[in-house]
Amino acid sequence: MIIDFPNMPATVVEHFKGGEKEYVVKTFLDEQNRIMHGTLHPGASIGMHMHERNSETYYILSGTGHIVMNDGTEEDFTVGQMHYCPMGKGHTLINKGETDLVFIAIVSEHHD
Amino acid sequence: MIIDFPNMPATVVEHFKGGEKEYVVKTFLDEQNRIMHGTLHPGASIGMHMHERNSETYYILSGTGHIVMNDGTEEDFTVGQMHYCPMGKGHTLINKGETDLVFIAIVSEHHD
Repeated sequence: MIIDFPNMPATVVEHFKGGEKEYVVKTFLDEQNRIMHGTLHPGASIGMHMHERNSETYYILSGTGHIVMNDGTEEDFTVGQMHYCPMGKGHTLINKGETDLVFIAIVSEHHD
Repeated sequence: MIIDFPNMPATVVEHFKGGEKEYVVKTFLDEQNRIMHGTLHPGASIGMHMHERNSETYYILSGTGHIVMNDGTEEDFTVGQMHYCPMGKGHTLINKGETDLVFIAIVSEHHD
């Protein structure tokens, strides 16, 4: 099946996971995966959250993302790179740049 | 962690899953996910394969992809769209276009 993000309506979530400002998101969801097209405007963030039984990948389409892991390590990534949060770890995603951060996010469940 | 595809070496796989020509791929692998940056030149394909206990998403970065599902249904998708093969189904990916098909593919395992 095709997930047609360009023609899918977006939802605006305030303070997603306790983050700053808005998370503008288009979502496909089933029992195994949550597949998202996300936008964080400058200064917006997704708050710290754990991935106890799933994992998450971010692939950046435009802008630069800043990650803080639950162990305190930090990293930046940009267009063409992915950030991977393995099962058992937690992370935030922050737009510290001056342009929108646009990305694909996939949360996959790793249990029967 | 960052998966730095732009600076990762590519592997060339001939007739991947029984497909045509070459699959040029950069791969990150752990127990939960196989995360790939793939290129199929014109006329190349990934052969039919089943996802019995996992699922796969393709996100196109350039070009157009043609999908045939194991039930015979077909669909095309292009830049900005995703194809999703749910757990329990099978699919092929064919580059019927005249330019390279470049995409991100994520295979996620859905069992303990």
